[in-house]
Amino acid sequence: MAGDVPVNIDLIRAAEARLAGHARRTPLLGSLFLDQIAGRRVLVKAECLQHTGSFKFRGAWSAITALPEGVRGVLAFSSGNHAQGVAYAASLRGLSAVILMPADAPAIKIANTRALGAEVVLYDRATEDRDALGAALAQERGLALIPPFDHPQVIAGQGTVGLEIAEQALALGVTSAEMLVCCGGGGLTSGVALALEAEAPGFRVRTVEPEGFDDVAQSLVLGKVVTNPLRSGLCDAIVTPAPGKLTWPILQRLCGPGLVVSDSQALRAMALAHERLKLVLEPGGAVALAAALFLPDQIEAETIIVTASGGNVDRELVPRALATGETHVDC
Amino acid sequence: MAGDVPVNIDLIRAAEARLAGHARRTPLLGSLFLDQIAGRRVLVKAECLQHTGSFKFRGAWSAITALPEGVRGVLAFSSGNHAQGVAYAASLRGLSAVILMPADAPAIKIANTRALGAEVVLYDRATEDRDALGAALAQERGLALIPPFDHPQVIAGQGTVGLEIAEQALALGVTSAEMLVCCGGGGLTSGVALALEAEAPGFRVRTVEPEGFDDVAQSLVLGKVVTNPLRSGLCDAIVTPAPGKLTWPILQRLCGPGLVVSDSQALRAMALAHERLKLVLEPGGAVALAAALFLPDQIEAETIIVTASGGNVDRELVPRALATGETHVDC
Repeated sequence: MAGDVPVNIDLIRAAEARLAGHARRTPLLGSLFLDQIAGRRVLVKAECLQHTGSFKFRGAWSAITALPEGVRGVLAFSSGNHAQGVAYAASLRGLSAVILMPADAPAIKIANTRALGAEVVLYDRATEDRDALGAALAQERGLALIPPFDHPQVIAGQGTVGLEIAEQALALGVTSAEMLVCCGGGGLTSGVALALEAEAPGFRVRTVEPEGFDDVAQSLVLGKVVTNPLRSGLCDAIVTPAPGKLTWPILQRLCGPGLVVSDSQALRAMALAHERLKLVLEPGGAVALAAALFLPDQIEAETIIVTASGGNVDRELVPRALATGETHVDC
Repeated sequence: MAGDVPVNIDLIRAAEARLAGHARRTPLLGSLFLDQIAGRRVLVKAECLQHTGSFKFRGAWSAITALPEGVRGVLAFSSGNHAQGVAYAASLRGLSAVILMPADAPAIKIANTRALGAEVVLYDRATEDRDALGAALAQERGLALIPPFDHPQVIAGQGTVGLEIAEQALALGVTSAEMLVCCGGGGLTSGVALALEAEAPGFRVRTVEPEGFDDVAQSLVLGKVVTNPLRSGLCDAIVTPAPGKLTWPILQRLCGPGLVVSDSQALRAMALAHERLKLVLEPGGAVALAAALFLPDQIEAETIIVTASGGNVDRELVPRALATGETHVDC
């Protein structure tokens, strides 16, 4: 059903109206020190400051506020940012939320998701079929599934990041830029691309992925969807195996070429965001900044805008990231 | 001369007009998790996201843009946030800036101040007279001194934080609150207090200081200025020995009672800001949040607003702060 809704700028503008007063309008930040490293101006859209620590709240709120009357609750699969965004958005709307999480997910993420009001149902990754379990739960309890990216209203919600960027960048006099987006399944990237196509046509949108998870970059090169093996990685928020059915045509039409950074570059970008922007980023939320700082030869524009998509990082990883900052000049 | 300018809401509004488009309008953030710890709603004014990582840019810009014609440069004494705020504001205005810094200041702060365009003059704390050195330099080169807090236009610039808080809080429906401000010499606190007296009279302004540096809290109790011994401390940004001649009467008229937190409470507030707000705070910028979270019995209002005044923390201190976050429930 959701797939029949056209994903376009009108849907994003409608989502923006529903998000007004609920999602945070996050700032567009910068630092002379980062500009010096990049050799050009770098502007950072700080979505780590969004409710629940990532842009995912936007898509969740957009999808939940677009549900038909009579839905009593929602269901999501996620061990990370989408889980928290859905849990919080549902609680604000007075809907129940069931989040299916693997039993071996970090205890802190399970605790956070529960604290945000969701019922967490744990399953065993090795022996249980998540999709079957979810479908049964959804039917039994009358829950609506909120997918992490491949859903028109989720893409529309994430697209509001692009509307804000267009407005904030134009206020700074920026009319031409490369827009680098941390990319997993492409929900944020495709939404931002549609928004900028309408509001800032001088901006070129490019995906940024971690090494080993560059399905979108490869898909853009080959003109067809390429799939990564499903496995875990440091940039856990964006290790999705492939772009979605809805996101891929938008990515193919509006985005590229894709950029790819190493885990150590992501860690160094985290350290520099910490030191120069006073922002806490998670590895998957730092890859676009890493590309801006450390891949100067692959970028042409005088101004780069990046999404700092999320900040839900395990406390233990922070000292490791900060230790990489010492040597940021010889990257 | 500067002392003759009346420090009032009109001066703050005029500073706001000069700051528009130059200072960042920083967000007012919150987190359910922090609300749960505090037992009430906590709103955090994220001035660590201001240019140069602290609110000090506001006062510097306000003072520098109010200088008479013909001034060719400015002078400041500081090893920290004021130095960087003055250096950056001066460079944006095309003025030279000379910052007198102790030779044993952290190398990174000296490097940052130079990178922001200032000429750094080092002096020996033990053998040289900073004030005499500064006066000679100012006269010789025609520089205007920008004091760190006791100056009408500096107070007016910091007061713009209060104007923004009033507007942001009222937009959230908050008309009654305790406003906790990280307090050194009282420039930020007195400016915020004047702004809120005019724009949000239901807000009660209270100072927050580190243990051992509670000159303002004690002064408010005794009704006269009390002085701390001059020494260093973890909360280096706010270890000022006494309130100023201009700030004290404003503090006495509008603020109190003062709150006092321990260094370990400041470190735990840093950890919680990191985890729950995705903000990097320095110890002196975290004391107001610490009071909100850890001194519930000394606060009456249902809503607390705190300044997160700065984020210029040494990288080495961060793991120490994060390690304190583990036990935040039993505080």
